[in-house]
Amino acid sequence: MTTSHSQGYLVTIICETVLQDRLVKLLSTLGASGYTIIPAKGAGSHGKRMGDIAGYNTNIEVKTIVTPEMSTQLMEDLKEFQSTHALIAYHQKVEGLFD
Amino acid sequence: MTTSHSQGYLVTIICETVLQDRLVKLLSTLGASGYTIIPAKGAGSHGKRMGDIAGYNTNIEVKTIVTPEMSTQLMEDLKEFQSTHALIAYHQKVEGLFD
Amino acid sequence: MTTSHSQGYLVTIICETVLQDRLVKLLSTLGASGYTIIPAKGAGSHGKRMGDIAGYNTNIEVKTIVTPEMSTQLMEDLKEFQSTHALIAYHQKVEGLFD
Repeated sequence: MTTSHSQGYLVTIICETVLQDRLVKLLSTLGASGYTIIPAKGAGSHGKRMGDIAGYNTNIEVKTIVTPEMSTQLMEDLKEFQSTHALIAYHQKVEGLFD
Repeated sequence: MTTSHSQGYLVTIICETVLQDRLVKLLSTLGASGYTIIPAKGAGSHGKRMGDIAGYNTNIEVKTIVTPEMSTQLMEDLKEFQSTHALIAYHQKVEGLFD
Repeated sequence: MTTSHSQGYLVTIICETVLQDRLVKLLSTLGASGYTIIPAKGAGSHGKRMGDIAGYNTNIEVKTIVTPEMSTQLMEDLKEFQSTHALIAYHQKVEGLFD
């Protein structure tokens, strides 16, 4: 509609809160220009580790908008967290007002 | 970019908090592997029932990633909630790291 | 899959909480049928103004589903906020259950 919009990949990560500092560090290392964190709760593979007794867990949703290359790299880097923690992540192409 | 990503439908439901238990039960019945719940507030058709006096309501945003078939079924099942409660829902195809 | 779903543009705005009242007024002026607000925190261009000393800021995520025309107008109107406040916004085409 208008050509003045930026294009980027919105990456959404939903994971255990304990991963927050490591994620922020990872995003910084990758050169992400910013991120947003929202507290969440969840169950199942979105938020509960196998063997976790409580039905609910304290989770966070982390969002960042990055380049296609950074999105691919971020997804790769996140895989290592999945072996030890509850984490899902997905990315979507978006356009709008952002750097 | 890489072929190791899962594909699925992200369903987002925004509704009155009072529906939480019923939604969780519905997701479980449909076989969703997990879900995330975030507290929210809203107004208009996103969160206020006709006749509701307060401008704000206590809402939740529920997200789940499911198969295309489950997404279609979930949307159908959600319609019955709309006759009695404020609820909107939308789905988007996403790819990433999830079951 | 089914033809009974509505189509619209989901606009997500992440900005400083101080903008909340002005955004709600803007959405109302544009004729948005509703909106959802979720408290968030952020850093970088997603939530920190240049010169802001704290690493974290109090932000909100505002979501609304509107027509393509309203989405374009909303994006234009949001640009003026960016000169003085931390704000990002993006829109995505979605389908589902909403007015």
